[in-house]
Amino acid sequence: MDVTLETLIIRVNGDVAEETGDRLAAEIAFSLDVNGQRIVSLLCTPSDLDCMAVGFLLSEGLLSKRELLLDLQVNEAQASVGVTLKDLPVDWQGRFHRKTITSGCGQGVTFSDSAQLRALPPIRSSLAISPAAINELLREFRGVSDLFHATGGVHSAALSDGKSLLFHTEDIGRHNAVDKLIGKAFLAGIPVDDKIVFSSGRVSGEVMTKMIRSRIPILVSRAAPTCMAVAAAEDHGITLIGFARGQRMNVYTHPQRVDFSKISRYEDHCRSSGR
Amino acid sequence: MDVTLETLIIRVNGDVAEETGDRLAAEIAFSLDVNGQRIVSLLCTPSDLDCMAVGFLLSEGLLSKRELLLDLQVNEAQASVGVTLKDLPVDWQGRFHRKTITSGCGQGVTFSDSAQLRALPPIRSSLAISPAAINELLREFRGVSDLFHATGGVHSAALSDGKSLLFHTEDIGRHNAVDKLIGKAFLAGIPVDDKIVFSSGRVSGEVMTKMIRSRIPILVSRAAPTCMAVAAAEDHGITLIGFARGQRMNVYTHPQRVDFSKISRYEDHCRSSGR
Repeated sequence: MDVTLETLIIRVNGDVAEETGDRLAAEIAFSLDVNGQRIVSLLCTPSDLDCMAVGFLLSEGLLSKRELLLDLQVNEAQASVGVTLKDLPVDWQGRFHRKTITSGCGQGVTFSDSAQLRALPPIRSSLAISPAAINELLREFRGVSDLFHATGGVHSAALSDGKSLLFHTEDIGRHNAVDKLIGKAFLAGIPVDDKIVFSSGRVSGEVMTKMIRSRIPILVSRAAPTCMAVAAAEDHGITLIGFARGQRMNVYTHPQRVDFSKISRYEDHCRSSGR
Repeated sequence: MDVTLETLIIRVNGDVAEETGDRLAAEIAFSLDVNGQRIVSLLCTPSDLDCMAVGFLLSEGLLSKRELLLDLQVNEAQASVGVTLKDLPVDWQGRFHRKTITSGCGQGVTFSDSAQLRALPPIRSSLAISPAAINELLREFRGVSDLFHATGGVHSAALSDGKSLLFHTEDIGRHNAVDKLIGKAFLAGIPVDDKIVFSSGRVSGEVMTKMIRSRIPILVSRAAPTCMAVAAAEDHGITLIGFARGQRMNVYTHPQRVDFSKISRYEDHCRSSGR
């Protein structure tokens, strides 16, 4: 399936208009069936549908270990993905019905979800990375996101071990890009609890929920976090870095994983520069 | 309720780090009760909760006319909004359970929704606006969005009659900003079927669904549309303008509402400049 489509537009620039071709981000709605039950319809960029399905189930807490995923079938013609899972919680269908539906980007978390999340221990990874290494990876991250550049309408996420980007995913939804990333790592058998996630999109509480469930210790975003995301990162031991652009970044929580040894603190800098 | 919160961060710039204050976009989860039934939990910026609730119900097709809204109570302490509606469709609760839940920005539309939408006649408004007037309004739109500038994490939407911006709304979710806008107009008794909506966010199929239900003839976005949004705009007679920044904009659909009389078509421009 194509991830972009060609269209004809009128491009206006000042007092000049021209008819020209343009590329749009494609979107599809696909159905996700779990153990023969249609549970949800997901709207996303038509790529990595298997990863999308698995990442969604991981983020929703319906899947945790590889051996619980018995079967996965993508049916492109019918726009559906069928998954067979073992050991589903007794109330899994009820839980799905209780799930909050939210309007738009900051997708909701039910109170029951929150309780389940709160019960998880904080993340204690000793992973650390320097600002210089983050900058290097950010440059690579900007480079890989071709689709974003082609259409301007797509978010990217990438997984890194701190040395290079292992792979990246793209989607019209920033949440989807993260779900695809987590799902891709899961299907490839790559642990994520010692990895860094890069994201082009803003960080809401919902994105942070995905990090918490997958035990990812560091999230670097080019955009802003919300207060719910910062609170969740603080509570769950996740290092949250936002506004990471060029040489700049904001470290919102758990700076113990940022290696500041080559960095002068502002006070020292003032002193050494004689201000 | 405050729409931003102060936090302490470490700001890194090159090889200098400093501890400093930063402002974050606030988020709350509030429950929406319709006729005493808790139907959904919505995650949004804590402002205009009454507009958010009403806009959500309008976009979901559960509310259409002012006289059907019998009562609206915002309970900030309990983070809930209670709405009493008249003449709900017989299957309204079932419909809500069937609603697709999607992961992230491109929130889903069920097939039943689509059928209902397809039955609506195309929008035939004779509203027209020139690129120069759009540019003028865009400048004003950039100016009003203070919260976005303060935190970098918030989307804006504004309603215009083509001469000025009547009002604007803000939210962490671009869908929510549009729902708040439509809800605000509804509660103020302002018709929207002869107005222009400005949006800071990308235009997905879901945003376009809101336009279709509220019969809004022109949508101007600073960002990209998806192919589903363009297809829906084309089918429903909506003029969709994207990438509207500075002097530039792309007209994706129904250019008959863009007044090109002061604009030279590219071919003419080439001819007059001797190229």
